[in-house]
Amino acid sequence: MIKAGIYGATGYAGAELIRILSGHSEAEVYFATSRTHAGKNLNSIHPDAPNILLQDAEEVDLEQTDVVFLCLPSASGMPIVVDALEAGAKVIDLSADFRLNDANKYKDWYGTTHLAPDLLSEAVYGLSETNRSDLEDARLVANPGCYPTSFLLPIWPLISNNIFDNSRPIIVDSKSGVSGAGRSPKQHLHFVEVSGNFQPYKIGRVHRHVPEMEQQLLSWNSRFPELIFTPHLLPVPRGILSTIYLPVEPNTKEDDIRAICSKTYTNEPFVKLLPSSQNVSLAHVLHSNLCVFGLNLTGDTLIITSAIDNLVKGAAGQAVQNMNIVFGITETCGLK
Amino acid sequence: MIKAGIYGATGYAGAELIRILSGHSEAEVYFATSRTHAGKNLNSIHPDAPNILLQDAEEVDLEQTDVVFLCLPSASGMPIVVDALEAGAKVIDLSADFRLNDANKYKDWYGTTHLAPDLLSEAVYGLSETNRSDLEDARLVANPGCYPTSFLLPIWPLISNNIFDNSRPIIVDSKSGVSGAGRSPKQHLHFVEVSGNFQPYKIGRVHRHVPEMEQQLLSWNSRFPELIFTPHLLPVPRGILSTIYLPVEPNTKEDDIRAICSKTYTNEPFVKLLPSSQNVSLAHVLHSNLCVFGLNLTGDTLIITSAIDNLVKGAAGQAVQNMNIVFGITETCGLK
Amino acid sequence: MIKAGIYGATGYAGAELIRILSGHSEAEVYFATSRTHAGKNLNSIHPDAPNILLQDAEEVDLEQTDVVFLCLPSASGMPIVVDALEAGAKVIDLSADFRLNDANKYKDWYGTTHLAPDLLSEAVYGLSETNRSDLEDARLVANPGCYPTSFLLPIWPLISNNIFDNSRPIIVDSKSGVSGAGRSPKQHLHFVEVSGNFQPYKIGRVHRHVPEMEQQLLSWNSRFPELIFTPHLLPVPRGILSTIYLPVEPNTKEDDIRAICSKTYTNEPFVKLLPSSQNVSLAHVLHSNLCVFGLNLTGDTLIITSAIDNLVKGAAGQAVQNMNIVFGITETCGLK
Amino acid sequence: MIKAGIYGATGYAGAELIRILSGHSEAEVYFATSRTHAGKNLNSIHPDAPNILLQDAEEVDLEQTDVVFLCLPSASGMPIVVDALEAGAKVIDLSADFRLNDANKYKDWYGTTHLAPDLLSEAVYGLSETNRSDLEDARLVANPGCYPTSFLLPIWPLISNNIFDNSRPIIVDSKSGVSGAGRSPKQHLHFVEVSGNFQPYKIGRVHRHVPEMEQQLLSWNSRFPELIFTPHLLPVPRGILSTIYLPVEPNTKEDDIRAICSKTYTNEPFVKLLPSSQNVSLAHVLHSNLCVFGLNLTGDTLIITSAIDNLVKGAAGQAVQNMNIVFGITETCGLK
Repeated sequence: MIKAGIYGATGYAGAELIRILSGHSEAEVYFATSRTHAGKNLNSIHPDAPNILLQDAEEVDLEQTDVVFLCLPSASGMPIVVDALEAGAKVIDLSADFRLNDANKYKDWYGTTHLAPDLLSEAVYGLSETNRSDLEDARLVANPGCYPTSFLLPIWPLISNNIFDNSRPIIVDSKSGVSGAGRSPKQHLHFVEVSGNFQPYKIGRVHRHVPEMEQQLLSWNSRFPELIFTPHLLPVPRGILSTIYLPVEPNTKEDDIRAICSKTYTNEPFVKLLPSSQNVSLAHVLHSNLCVFGLNLTGDTLIITSAIDNLVKGAAGQAVQNMNIVFGITETCGLK
Repeated sequence: MIKAGIYGATGYAGAELIRILSGHSEAEVYFATSRTHAGKNLNSIHPDAPNILLQDAEEVDLEQTDVVFLCLPSASGMPIVVDALEAGAKVIDLSADFRLNDANKYKDWYGTTHLAPDLLSEAVYGLSETNRSDLEDARLVANPGCYPTSFLLPIWPLISNNIFDNSRPIIVDSKSGVSGAGRSPKQHLHFVEVSGNFQPYKIGRVHRHVPEMEQQLLSWNSRFPELIFTPHLLPVPRGILSTIYLPVEPNTKEDDIRAICSKTYTNEPFVKLLPSSQNVSLAHVLHSNLCVFGLNLTGDTLIITSAIDNLVKGAAGQAVQNMNIVFGITETCGLK
Repeated sequence: MIKAGIYGATGYAGAELIRILSGHSEAEVYFATSRTHAGKNLNSIHPDAPNILLQDAEEVDLEQTDVVFLCLPSASGMPIVVDALEAGAKVIDLSADFRLNDANKYKDWYGTTHLAPDLLSEAVYGLSETNRSDLEDARLVANPGCYPTSFLLPIWPLISNNIFDNSRPIIVDSKSGVSGAGRSPKQHLHFVEVSGNFQPYKIGRVHRHVPEMEQQLLSWNSRFPELIFTPHLLPVPRGILSTIYLPVEPNTKEDDIRAICSKTYTNEPFVKLLPSSQNVSLAHVLHSNLCVFGLNLTGDTLIITSAIDNLVKGAAGQAVQNMNIVFGITETCGLK
Repeated sequence: MIKAGIYGATGYAGAELIRILSGHSEAEVYFATSRTHAGKNLNSIHPDAPNILLQDAEEVDLEQTDVVFLCLPSASGMPIVVDALEAGAKVIDLSADFRLNDANKYKDWYGTTHLAPDLLSEAVYGLSETNRSDLEDARLVANPGCYPTSFLLPIWPLISNNIFDNSRPIIVDSKSGVSGAGRSPKQHLHFVEVSGNFQPYKIGRVHRHVPEMEQQLLSWNSRFPELIFTPHLLPVPRGILSTIYLPVEPNTKEDDIRAICSKTYTNEPFVKLLPSSQNVSLAHVLHSNLCVFGLNLTGDTLIITSAIDNLVKGAAGQAVQNMNIVFGITETCGLK
């Protein structure tokens, strides 16, 4: 059994990770930490979680751990990453700390000096379907953000195959459930504020996921279009649906686009292209590791609708998928 | 125009009060305070609120104020009550500080020594329909709690007319929307925790509204039955529905009960008995100052279902109704 | 008092209309019809509605009626419009029947031959702020659709002032609460299907509001850009938020755009431009006749976010605003 | 592999059953029927369901089927039950048709003459934990109602052990998510009607689950108390929480009650008594086959709070648990 340690087990991503690992036939939770709840059991925090003792991060035994998952706020886990790698564990970091490959850009967007800039070039971006061969040899996986996952998976075959017109921007209009904003109590996440409400935030190019998405686009195609991104807060507990407007060259055929996407994903267990007769919905993906997407060509604009569960394919599920790849076991293990 | 000062204007009850007063033809908001948001406008906190400048509580001019409303946490407003009365203003306190008429009981339930015990005997409990003549002369009104209002209004004619069997307990099974728990961000009020969930809390006789309800029952009838109270947190922003099980003597007739309730409330603008063909729902009362209730006799148990909007009849609306009574103006003014 | 007759009073728009008229100082509900509920009172259908007797449409007295509002499904109200005009009443039609000025286009989009094509040229499109002088003399008002209202109000000053680049499409990504889909029970509107879910529908250029929006754009500027429209079903009872991506010429300044919009709307009571520091939300507009919008220039794309209550400014509220204009009374009467 | 046939696969209980069986290691879906959707795939109806072809009920092959599950409206499945038993299949009926053991009572409550009264005495009531030995030999299982399951499981050890005072009624105040009302579109289940709302219905002794609950109480103890039952419609998709007020004799000790319940359930995988420090919530049980309950003695009234997922332990999950018992396989198979 793979011994897995989870840092930050009481947040939404951490708790989801433990739920998934509890049903995983080749991995087990070796330790789980919580800064504020050390000494309690996880199911006293999340009633439906397994009964696992929460420990202080200082007390854990890294030497016996095969893999650690970090479900911590940005910047706070970097020293743990260094220690865990030194102790010989693989590391899957669900925070943003190792997603950008440039320490200056990290400082610009996250406001903190990176503490382990040497590791940035080694870290592998864990968008599983697009990066499998690098992941197989990875010691350190930077697990993708939730919005980027919903955007990058459907767009990858198209950007890689030059199916776009870079004279116009790509527009990503995303809607996320509230667990995407974390579990810490905040005024704008109070039930009364969210229920019956809906709103955009960080409009244009100011959300931290913009440089993460652009870095991937660039790695696939140097002439990618400008990116515009509008996230919205949806009054549901979980799920992201992104409506993507990709400009394409005149005379591009929907059938050709569909064929390219089908070819890429037809054998992928976790990415599914819907027929044109069906509309994507959050209900397609909740509590699953799926990314489901649809295509609709209107004039010279391809409208892509893409849905994931932000806590599964957008966080804990993809993290386990990456663990499976890193350890060479069946990729769907624990995720079906 | 009646000059009204509101302390604690950014909480849910305070903001509702300002909305009501903004449409009141004989009163105006003279000042509104906020500890954390002084200097901002109210509508930057509540997008749909009027544009009113928030002040620091220390800066306001009590001398020119006709009435102050306190929408503050328990215990924190007592010094203001004293000052406001000295300055000649009427006081309507939406907190629990002046509801119990015994300072020792207050200390037992609220954990704090009462700072103005002399005023307890003077304070008038503002359950408007039951207490009008005392309210007309009141300087200090203790505005009722939300759960007590939903329970006491329908039960009043029955308890007063000896329609009960005190050998068995009255059971009050109440369900409240989340705004009843206040606006401060807390873990258990996070959207993700509440959405799709439902749970009881403070089961039996441990909620602070128990002594408040019992004090009223006792004032109406010394031989009132034992009270059992189970509040639940409902995944809606506002509204309370209480399902009340009142034991009655054998051979009590539903028609007689109905006649007593009708006689009490038929001319009341804000309390409405539904016919037996209709079930009470929150939809009957949301955003209104109504208490709507139904009666259903099953064996020797009368099932009373009662609904209010916790922020209106359960807080700000009843407070304005009390202000109208105190100042001798039309009781429905601003509330229709 | 203006005597108002409402056809289709039990749908969501009809019930909202009656609520608004009940608080209107210069108009009264003269009759209210319902096909399925004739003989009942409206508040037995909508618990919080006024107590108004519902009649059969055949029984009403048009001769004494000053204005009729039609809240009926497309195509079913056309004969009533003809009768009401003949009887001398003004008509405000909340359906789509008189919005398109071309009977052939109506047939293409609504699948029915228009029964009163002569009236199409006379009907005035009731987007109040943009069409006041025509409305003053109107006998027949085509009240706008909810999505078009949320899109057209903020875009009007910009399209009229040539602030766009017509080489790229305008993208309208709209999210609507469920009441926009009407009150008839349908599988996809069942609580269990909608709760926690979110999805797009009629993607691209296939929703019936596309020709309605384009007709207005054309009336303002013949060189308007191509329109792409993606509506989504939001798990809230009411409210529409549209995120609009308007291409603009290089070197357009956000301050200039803001100045144009401010100039147009600064004195309008129901349209409000937010400062750049605030994000638009449904909470700004629910239960009000407001359209609130924000502007955000990103590269050469202007991102406009716009919110209305679909049942008020998107239906019943704007209908009353139009009635006020038609009858020459204060435009805000009943709506503040 | 056990070959399972499901009648009524597109309702909420049917779809949940298929989801559970899809992860069951010793059973498989052999056929699935739908009256209205025959010929389609299940996942075109429920986006997150497995891809299973829906058949017409007339076309299926009963001879090869080991067990049939009926997820049909009351009365409509009786002929199928007869046919399936004749063909040698075991039958698990999720409708109410075989729950009452008296054909006259069935007619009184369900308004229809029972078509297979001879089978009533043979049918075993499938409240798994209480009826295991009878279930082992059963051909025909009457799967319990959702409300009865939430009430009967925690009350069983107490009623069986004479822990009650039958001079006062038991009061069951239940709150159910909307899927309990079925998937057919109905006005009162429309999202807009349910969202933000809450209401009681069928108050007192008029809900069809009353005779079902009383029949079990009687089977356990002939001197059981009168039953009062108030169901409420909760604005959540799934889950039932029942707050039960059980009168007990004076001087009954909470510790003794707790000991009796613990003894009964301590080794049961699906029934869990919470410590007094924790409150029961729907979050404890959603998407699981658990019944979680708490105890709180207040005076001479024991307050029991009990939660289940109405579609799992209240329907499909308990049905699979019963199948496991009937076929002698591990009782938790497919349910953990």
